Amino acid sequence: MAPEQVFIASAVQAWKQNVERADKIFSGLSDAQLQTEVAPGKNRLVYLWGHLTAVHDAMLPLLGVGDKLHPELAAAFLTAPDKAVAALPPTAELRRAWNEVNDRLLTAFRNFTVFDWAGKHTAVSDEAFAADPLRNRLSVVISRTSHVAYHVGQVALAPK
Amino acid sequence: MAPEQVFIASAVQAWKQNVERADKIFSGLSDAQLQTEVAPGKNRLVYLWGHLTAVHDAMLPLLGVGDKLHPELAAAFLTAPDKAVAALPPTAELRRAWNEVNDRLLTAFRNFTVFDWAGKHTAVSDEAFAADPLRNRLSVVISRTSHVAYHVGQVALAPK
Repeated sequence: MAPEQVFIASAVQAWKQNVERADKIFSGLSDAQLQTEVAPGKNRLVYLWGHLTAVHDAMLPLLGVGDKLHPELAAAFLTAPDKAVAALPPTAELRRAWNEVNDRLLTAFRNFTVFDWAGKHTAVSDEAFAADPLRNRLSVVISRTSHVAYHVGQVALAPK
Repeated sequence: MAPEQVFIASAVQAWKQNVERADKIFSGLSDAQLQTEVAPGKNRLVYLWGHLTAVHDAMLPLLGVGDKLHPELAAAFLTAPDKAVAALPPTAELRRAWNEVNDRLLTAFRNFTVFDWAGKHTAVSDEAFAADPLRNRLSVVISRTSHVAYHVGQVALAPK
């Protein structure tokens, strides 16, 4: 395995581990448990699940994979804070969206070449990318891995 | 910049961003604020700061950089849970250890070659590494980046 392949595989492994960690927690929660706040007055578990789903969905266009699969989630979980939107999607729908989006990303990751990974994401211009090659696709995945971990750390604090 | 260099720089950038995020929070806290629990009955901020310092210190031998700079931190912040050890180091000492350890790591990161990064960390045998090349130095840094993010997410919940 060449070093560049090793580095890609290492970053993708960390992504998978963190998403699986989130999945293991969220998938086992009842509707009632999903209403729990991670700490007094803070985000509810259902909001963080929807938020991660919406953020991962937005990775599809950002990585040039395709359109969002669930653009409807952004209003409740991305642009609005928790409790600002009264009607959230049912748990079964959220679970389906979460799985769909993450599966779609993993499929794309398997098909990216080394040059796809080192190539620019879609939110940066050619000029800006020439000046800063770190604005590449692998950076997006590394950054979103920290984002999952950040919220999983919060979810771990929720009263059982 | 060759792809393997881009990937290393992307992972190191994420490490730096997350450590700086933690640094910005912890360095600005008073002794009294450091006693705050991130959520009722959960770890105090001082414990998480010491815990991150101890975990980063342990990266030095794990990455083959050298011995721990502050092995004395492990007893209070790594092997024991919060509040199990009554006498924690003074804030100034903790701040110095945090800075020293993170500076030492960054210096090592700057000197690692591509093959150092792709090489095995010290807690894996040659045989196990041959079977799983993802047990490399860059993986350690990627994994510890998620670890920082996980706890920074918790720290962000602490009552102000």
